[in-house]
Amino acid sequence: MALLVETTTSGREYKVKDMSQADFGRLEIELAEVEMPGLMSSRVEFGPSQPFKGAKITGSLHMTIQTAVLIETLTALGAEVRWCSCNIFSTQDHAAAAIARDSAAVFAWKGETLQEYWWCSERALDWGPSGGPDLIVDDGGDVTLLIHEGLKAEQLFEKNGTLPDPSSTDNAEMQIVYTIIRDGLKTDPKRYHKMKDRIVGVSEETTTGVKRLYQMQANGSLLFPAINVNDSVTKSKFDNLYGCRHSLPDGLMRATDVMIAGKIAVVCGYGDVGKGCAAALKQGGARVVVTEIDPICALQALMEGLQVLTLEDVVSEADIFVTTTGNKDIIMVSDMKKMKNNAIVCNIGHFDNEIDMHGLETYPGVKRITIKPQTDRWVFPENNSGIIVLAEGRLMNLGCATGHPSFVMSCSFTNQVIAQIELWKEKTSGKYEKKVYVLPKHLDEKVASLHLNQLGAKLTKLSKDQADYISVPVEGPYKPAHYRY
Amino acid sequence: MALLVETTTSGREYKVKDMSQADFGRLEIELAEVEMPGLMSSRVEFGPSQPFKGAKITGSLHMTIQTAVLIETLTALGAEVRWCSCNIFSTQDHAAAAIARDSAAVFAWKGETLQEYWWCSERALDWGPSGGPDLIVDDGGDVTLLIHEGLKAEQLFEKNGTLPDPSSTDNAEMQIVYTIIRDGLKTDPKRYHKMKDRIVGVSEETTTGVKRLYQMQANGSLLFPAINVNDSVTKSKFDNLYGCRHSLPDGLMRATDVMIAGKIAVVCGYGDVGKGCAAALKQGGARVVVTEIDPICALQALMEGLQVLTLEDVVSEADIFVTTTGNKDIIMVSDMKKMKNNAIVCNIGHFDNEIDMHGLETYPGVKRITIKPQTDRWVFPENNSGIIVLAEGRLMNLGCATGHPSFVMSCSFTNQVIAQIELWKEKTSGKYEKKVYVLPKHLDEKVASLHLNQLGAKLTKLSKDQADYISVPVEGPYKPAHYRY
Amino acid sequence: MALLVETTTSGREYKVKDMSQADFGRLEIELAEVEMPGLMSSRVEFGPSQPFKGAKITGSLHMTIQTAVLIETLTALGAEVRWCSCNIFSTQDHAAAAIARDSAAVFAWKGETLQEYWWCSERALDWGPSGGPDLIVDDGGDVTLLIHEGLKAEQLFEKNGTLPDPSSTDNAEMQIVYTIIRDGLKTDPKRYHKMKDRIVGVSEETTTGVKRLYQMQANGSLLFPAINVNDSVTKSKFDNLYGCRHSLPDGLMRATDVMIAGKIAVVCGYGDVGKGCAAALKQGGARVVVTEIDPICALQALMEGLQVLTLEDVVSEADIFVTTTGNKDIIMVSDMKKMKNNAIVCNIGHFDNEIDMHGLETYPGVKRITIKPQTDRWVFPENNSGIIVLAEGRLMNLGCATGHPSFVMSCSFTNQVIAQIELWKEKTSGKYEKKVYVLPKHLDEKVASLHLNQLGAKLTKLSKDQADYISVPVEGPYKPAHYRY
Amino acid sequence: MALLVETTTSGREYKVKDMSQADFGRLEIELAEVEMPGLMSSRVEFGPSQPFKGAKITGSLHMTIQTAVLIETLTALGAEVRWCSCNIFSTQDHAAAAIARDSAAVFAWKGETLQEYWWCSERALDWGPSGGPDLIVDDGGDVTLLIHEGLKAEQLFEKNGTLPDPSSTDNAEMQIVYTIIRDGLKTDPKRYHKMKDRIVGVSEETTTGVKRLYQMQANGSLLFPAINVNDSVTKSKFDNLYGCRHSLPDGLMRATDVMIAGKIAVVCGYGDVGKGCAAALKQGGARVVVTEIDPICALQALMEGLQVLTLEDVVSEADIFVTTTGNKDIIMVSDMKKMKNNAIVCNIGHFDNEIDMHGLETYPGVKRITIKPQTDRWVFPENNSGIIVLAEGRLMNLGCATGHPSFVMSCSFTNQVIAQIELWKEKTSGKYEKKVYVLPKHLDEKVASLHLNQLGAKLTKLSKDQADYISVPVEGPYKPAHYRY
Repeated sequence: MALLVETTTSGREYKVKDMSQADFGRLEIELAEVEMPGLMSSRVEFGPSQPFKGAKITGSLHMTIQTAVLIETLTALGAEVRWCSCNIFSTQDHAAAAIARDSAAVFAWKGETLQEYWWCSERALDWGPSGGPDLIVDDGGDVTLLIHEGLKAEQLFEKNGTLPDPSSTDNAEMQIVYTIIRDGLKTDPKRYHKMKDRIVGVSEETTTGVKRLYQMQANGSLLFPAINVNDSVTKSKFDNLYGCRHSLPDGLMRATDVMIAGKIAVVCGYGDVGKGCAAALKQGGARVVVTEIDPICALQALMEGLQVLTLEDVVSEADIFVTTTGNKDIIMVSDMKKMKNNAIVCNIGHFDNEIDMHGLETYPGVKRITIKPQTDRWVFPENNSGIIVLAEGRLMNLGCATGHPSFVMSCSFTNQVIAQIELWKEKTSGKYEKKVYVLPKHLDEKVASLHLNQLGAKLTKLSKDQADYISVPVEGPYKPAHYRY
Repeated sequence: MALLVETTTSGREYKVKDMSQADFGRLEIELAEVEMPGLMSSRVEFGPSQPFKGAKITGSLHMTIQTAVLIETLTALGAEVRWCSCNIFSTQDHAAAAIARDSAAVFAWKGETLQEYWWCSERALDWGPSGGPDLIVDDGGDVTLLIHEGLKAEQLFEKNGTLPDPSSTDNAEMQIVYTIIRDGLKTDPKRYHKMKDRIVGVSEETTTGVKRLYQMQANGSLLFPAINVNDSVTKSKFDNLYGCRHSLPDGLMRATDVMIAGKIAVVCGYGDVGKGCAAALKQGGARVVVTEIDPICALQALMEGLQVLTLEDVVSEADIFVTTTGNKDIIMVSDMKKMKNNAIVCNIGHFDNEIDMHGLETYPGVKRITIKPQTDRWVFPENNSGIIVLAEGRLMNLGCATGHPSFVMSCSFTNQVIAQIELWKEKTSGKYEKKVYVLPKHLDEKVASLHLNQLGAKLTKLSKDQADYISVPVEGPYKPAHYRY
Repeated sequence: MALLVETTTSGREYKVKDMSQADFGRLEIELAEVEMPGLMSSRVEFGPSQPFKGAKITGSLHMTIQTAVLIETLTALGAEVRWCSCNIFSTQDHAAAAIARDSAAVFAWKGETLQEYWWCSERALDWGPSGGPDLIVDDGGDVTLLIHEGLKAEQLFEKNGTLPDPSSTDNAEMQIVYTIIRDGLKTDPKRYHKMKDRIVGVSEETTTGVKRLYQMQANGSLLFPAINVNDSVTKSKFDNLYGCRHSLPDGLMRATDVMIAGKIAVVCGYGDVGKGCAAALKQGGARVVVTEIDPICALQALMEGLQVLTLEDVVSEADIFVTTTGNKDIIMVSDMKKMKNNAIVCNIGHFDNEIDMHGLETYPGVKRITIKPQTDRWVFPENNSGIIVLAEGRLMNLGCATGHPSFVMSCSFTNQVIAQIELWKEKTSGKYEKKVYVLPKHLDEKVASLHLNQLGAKLTKLSKDQADYISVPVEGPYKPAHYRY
Repeated sequence: MALLVETTTSGREYKVKDMSQADFGRLEIELAEVEMPGLMSSRVEFGPSQPFKGAKITGSLHMTIQTAVLIETLTALGAEVRWCSCNIFSTQDHAAAAIARDSAAVFAWKGETLQEYWWCSERALDWGPSGGPDLIVDDGGDVTLLIHEGLKAEQLFEKNGTLPDPSSTDNAEMQIVYTIIRDGLKTDPKRYHKMKDRIVGVSEETTTGVKRLYQMQANGSLLFPAINVNDSVTKSKFDNLYGCRHSLPDGLMRATDVMIAGKIAVVCGYGDVGKGCAAALKQGGARVVVTEIDPICALQALMEGLQVLTLEDVVSEADIFVTTTGNKDIIMVSDMKKMKNNAIVCNIGHFDNEIDMHGLETYPGVKRITIKPQTDRWVFPENNSGIIVLAEGRLMNLGCATGHPSFVMSCSFTNQVIAQIELWKEKTSGKYEKKVYVLPKHLDEKVASLHLNQLGAKLTKLSKDQADYISVPVEGPYKPAHYRY
């Protein structure tokens, strides 16, 4: 696929797989809208006042049908938008086509190479001579990383003419990032300076990106305010938990059609994502073994009747392995070699380094048989025994299925919209410093409220007397900040 | 698609969608083999003695990957096989291609018209001048029906020259059946006579087909012995229950990506299939309402915390409707009109007449928007509100997903293999009359045993003393015939 | 406790623990009546016609509050009743007192010795000079056994003057039975002859008793017709399953207050009772291991995510052991010795020989520490490690808690009432031979219907057209005899 | 019961129901020790250094078997202890007897009047002339309240001779508190001054007490440092959740023997306690309806398949009502009048004002029928329909059953021990101001670790490289403060 930007009749740039899927994408977007009451309410509530008028938003977040509804909510509120995906396999091509045709500049397709992935990210950040972006929606922090690395490189270059050296790292992905920045430096050595000056803030979607932001805040390198959307209750306790409870079995089924009942499934990590995965597997009739480093999460797993062991204890008898840790080096090639024939290995954490794909790919004599895209059988030479790896170790729910369903993404993305509005509204007020913030609880509760009606729920109302008794306002927020839900 | 039979280089007939998918089919068949220990053990146990030597088997059963492993088990045991699917949407084209290329005559593709469907059935029955079939594997009883109707027509024609009159019925499908028989009569007026004389027996897969067989037995019209595979415990209490628990959410997710959690789901019928569906939906976080005619099944639903109401009670507030009854006229167009916008309506019972598709299709002004194959939005003119119908009212797990997973189908199909062996072995012994039989319990238990090892189970062995105490043989069978499991 | 029969002011015999608890019993009986719609409907439907007018019924069935409602239903329908419990620990003394005072002759108290137990059984059978009983309600078959053994002894005595010899068996309980019969022979050598001649039939409550009946039917020794109530669907698939799901954790909690979550629990046997126990333990957060001899039940356990192993595999790491097999010698003292300190061992099968209590009691140096009645810690001398045995190995749900709740017992006992009515109505018609019968399906369905309304359920009604389509009457029964539910 | 303090032979004061139950209490304490690894490890770890040497601890916390193990852990670490219960029904008399005889001064029995309750509290605070306490263990904050109210009264009395006026409030309980303080003032007008000066701090067990502490901190009236044990993860996410999941059905079963399956159960409040209750009821086969004021918790309930409605919506059709809110006036007598006959009403929140007991008791013509202690049927005169109220509206799990099981209480109480050690160790360091603190995360994780081994769990260990990658120490703590688990 030649990396040439294309242009719609109305002059908007894009690069997608197949523009002819736009109609199909539109149909599914319309279905999704019915399932995303939070976003649709936001359009009704904020649309008339056009809060994003003049704002240029760059987003790097799985280019799915649900994200399409988010993008069109941002544009309905007045924003101009450029978008890329934050994962090489997560784009739904019909969603990308519909958005590219109708609403925003999109650079995303299912099955990008890493090279293409970073090209897309750069395109999404490139607002041309008029400058931009003003705001960033990030998921995992790659676009934020690019800007921070870009600025560092420009500063060093400015100082002593040093160019980034891709060969200075053996991380394949960082080599590409350095190359892109190096090449960019040659044409515009102030690109990231200008960007940094203009950007009002970023709202970050996921645990991994948030972790990076707190690290940057800790070492003082954060260039602009950040809102941690992940830790809104209505995000992390819903999307991460209930989203994965839905999409893990979905991905397993679409990729392998395997019967879950009766199997031994190992879930590495028992955080919100791990809890959702373990629940889904248990309910599907699997016997679930959890691996954990944190004794509290381990004790939670035990209280739910799950077994807590180390990977080593079960590696040779389990049928399904899922990594959910947000850490690296969870399942190594040496583990995979010990597995049963046709054991399934997959990852639902943000990055693909939970599974030692590099070790697997470079194992002497290993043979890769692609059953279908994102479903590979890897056969070891010693015993002709194979394992099945999903989505090349990347997010299997997005690589092998369609990610999280609309309803739960409506919760997450309504937080995104609120975060973006907040950053833009306060762009000159000084309310937000170069730090990481979470949304206040009353907004979190608001996001939840917007989703109750559709499910037929009726809330009970506190009397003034009752509210006073428990020392909360009648209209909320109802819980102290440290409340864990 | 022109209805022309094609021929492999080795001279075997077939008609499939795309022979180039044979390699892909083969890969998935190999994966499935690992998950089907019952069938693979049968190959090991019976292969050497070639029990089907000389037997010609016609099968009419969803042409999936799992069925491919069944077919190749039959051929591994010496049979010659011709196959068609028993549902217009259930064929997996890569499975059909692999079998057509490598193992048996296949006439099946995903998305047949009814006309094509019956053409395929006739092809599967047509063994040419050398005659056949000897045995039938049926699912739903369509091939058995064709033979019975064919013979009836030939007898009437013989008697008084009357030809079947397609216009004598307003059942669209029976019109096609009559036409086919009528046209066949002209070329060979003894075709079904010869078939009847030769056929040793049929083994029937599912509730619906079994019901038809018992009706024929009751009115004395059954032409050959039948083994009711459906009512083997290892079939109906596994495939129907655990299979649907797996494949219902799979179908829902692939077709609509809808979030199950938080929804109100109505399951019409709480038999084995309904129990599996209700369990899956409840575990997925839906609130499940059951409709039932049978007070015992209704009380079972209540004991599981499900609500039992009539369709009318919830038709306007539920989000998902699933029919599992084996009866007809369960959800009528008048019901569909009352549903919420984008309510999902689907059927997982054998026939498509559980949902009033005819009423829907002929509703004045109704608009059908095909989101993607097997997922249609039907919009009513009055209020512009739509409902989403899956697989045109046919088996949604096979139409929208890939049916039941290999492991549970291995139980069902091992029963099929055993039933076919039994019929063929006893073909001249007179053991089986023109009646419906179930397999003896020791074979049922054997099927179960063949599936334990793969799941790491270890059985406890009775001592002689214990066996005597409960009056069973040490090696089983362990339960009285009426035991319900 | 001196074994003297007492007499109410109205002249009815009884022997209970404490008559002053009658008021308390009455209050709980009144609560139970609200939860037993099947029995209360039977009073309304049949009361006016007094179908039991003239019938003398002896019952041997746990003398609980629920049984009290059964007894008073029998008396409300015209019967005269004498009752004993079928388990030494299962009597609720306040229930016994209320019935003894108000309604029937009762001989039962919590904590009978075996000697007392059989004395009570004999009292319940003793209708004095006017003769009786006409009908028997049995649970486990002890009263039926007594009559059969009694008759055998009388016949032998008649033949050659031989008296039963208690020392001829080392079964402690049979020694008592023989003694009782021997002593009885001396006063009335025709007692069981007269009884046999008069008895119209027995309705048997539970698996164990049914097994005995089928054995007697098989060897031709059954003396009168028997209705197998256990195998009514509304009994075995409700009482055995949902009843135990309720009462197993109830018994565990009352006896030991142990936390179920996080524990490893072994359920020996995965029949209806085992399924209920395993479900309760799993839901309570335990990790459940099942032991099974039957491959079909084992495969069912696996499909529910349970591990299937032998007792030996887990004996030293599990925390809770429950026997549910109906067989004997399931947990031997050699197993108990290997268990963790304070492992809990209990039985919910009918007889106490599932656990090797004899082996435990006679283990050299073993020490029994009674924590409270029905909760004993047994300490082995070798390592000072102890295990906790509930209810001395007898039905722990009745010994340590109050048995099954009223609602589910209403299902079972409505079957009992219907069975008794049926036997009595057909006493001279010859409809029932000396065989074992189950109730016809329409009565089974009727029992279920009587329990739906209270739970707010609404049944769907078949149209005539639909009923014809599936070949059932509009008003049922709806399923073939072999249907498994 | 005359309120006279008694004295053991060794001279320790006590007032319990029945000292003869001490042996029984000791047996159950020994069983509980095996189930409380956190407390027993604390004895091993801290016992030798006697960290509480010289410390006088007053505790006000349900005097159960589990609390007995806590008390004896405190004394094993060197403390001198006086104890009362924090609820009139929660004492287990055999536990109180064993502790009174063997280990500490106890003033507690099951079924105290309110008068007696506050007398016990005062006794527990009265360390005689030598002064004390040094530390307080509180549950619900009643002892802390007494000290704060006492001091306020003394200060006012000092200022202008004013005595507390019981008639100034119509809260029956506060009238008693004022009376006690008033009477005390006459004998020692500096009692609470001295206490305040001496007390090093309080550790508070539960949500309700914590709420009070934060209110006092907010208005500056808190007299000494407080550690909020409730909000340790290993307390609120275990005891509140899994404890109630265990003890709610236990209380229901012991009080009413009611079948949970098939019932409609209303859980008012979906916090940690409500989540545990709803899970237990759902698993038991009930259909659960949740009432909530907080939209986030409401959305969580929906995601679990529960219905969210107002009490009004279901008051007349539900069977079981449980309040878990920590608020007041949840179920009023006007609601109770609308309920079905024999609907069960109970509370598992800390205080009894969730249920309008006053309204019920004073309803004209209402009749109370005590089925057994803590189980009352209240009959309304209008329709003779009754409801069943458990534990007079107080904590039903402690009133009708035995509270939470040992294992989960070991988590809670190990936090208590650690909190007490911390307060005492830092008594002069100034580390703790007059504020409310939670324990640091590494101690929370430690409490969890102490409970893993007993359940057979094995933790995975981070490599240094992995720990660096996610920026945590190898040995933990592993999560940011805001993590919700």
